Amino acid sequence: MLRLCLILLLVLVLGASLRAAFPMDNMKKSCSLSKYQFLVPQELKAVQKMKEQFEEIMLLSDRKCNTRLFHRKWKIAELSVPDRVMLVEAELDLATTMLELPTAPRFAETRQQPLTFLTQAREDLRVCMATESPSHQPSGKLRHWLQKLQTAKETETTGCLEASAILHLFQVLNDLRCTALRQRCT
Amino acid sequence: MLRLCLILLLVLVLGASLRAAFPMDNMKKSCSLSKYQFLVPQELKAVQKMKEQFEEIMLLSDRKCNTRLFHRKWKIAELSVPDRVMLVEAELDLATTMLELPTAPRFAETRQQPLTFLTQAREDLRVCMATESPSHQPSGKLRHWLQKLQTAKETETTGCLEASAILHLFQVLNDLRCTALRQRCT
Repeated sequence: MLRLCLILLLVLVLGASLRAAFPMDNMKKSCSLSKYQFLVPQELKAVQKMKEQFEEIMLLSDRKCNTRLFHRKWKIAELSVPDRVMLVEAELDLATTMLELPTAPRFAETRQQPLTFLTQAREDLRVCMATESPSHQPSGKLRHWLQKLQTAKETETTGCLEASAILHLFQVLNDLRCTALRQRCT
Repeated sequence: MLRLCLILLLVLVLGASLRAAFPMDNMKKSCSLSKYQFLVPQELKAVQKMKEQFEEIMLLSDRKCNTRLFHRKWKIAELSVPDRVMLVEAELDLATTMLELPTAPRFAETRQQPLTFLTQAREDLRVCMATESPSHQPSGKLRHWLQKLQTAKETETTGCLEASAILHLFQVLNDLRCTALRQRCT
């Protein structure tokens, strides 16, 4: 009986120590972007297919923009890694919001795979921001770009925002890759 | 003197016979599309670069269309070879006209290589039509499509026509390849 009590006590103490050493939240949510260093061809192909299908239908509605949403005079490699994470998170935020808009059944089906992939990437970036640089302040050039994006979201039409986001998806994927490569993206 | 006259006569007779056997017009302009069976990567790359640059600027002006210019419910392989030549000639006619419009210097430079390539392809198709099927009448489905294209050219805005033509360039290049492959494109 005493021996059984000792074993139970040992199990409880060990369990508590393990939980203290590896909190469940951190184990579940650690920053890892390495899988985005080399994008899987089937994901790229799905994005390409979606872009082509969108190009087929996009001209049937008004898409005129007043500004070039994704335009910038600097390269992402010029930014610090936390700045890059912040940039791509904002880009993916717009892209996924636009890919969730109501649409025709055929396009809804085609966009499903890219949407799942991009939503996962945005979530992974969010975890990285929260765990690695929770109080990061964007640099001047990034802040200016984020401000421009925010203004566009408030002033441009949905048609413009949707077209900009989908037409620039490969730029966003390149930005994601550069962010995942960290110092190796120059 | 007599010998010289005989030689001169011989040269004249031979010259006339050669011209009769190989008329200069036919020698210059024979139908050959084999070079379009496998498109050179550098040409495809130049078209891709141009398309990307166009996507960057296209949303800044009105591009709305009332119809889908390049849409069709049949595949090009379903057409006879002379029908295909006629289809691609019409597609290239629109594409080259649109690529000749006044534009910003940067885009004008980028489009130069694709424009040269597409203009040459259109000329080669024109020669094939003229030498191989000068009195070809399009099939019902092609005639219907050509009529739709003609109506669009007369009723749609230049912004719509330009965007449709540039966004569909890879479809046009695929059509060109299928035409060049003749019976091997199924």
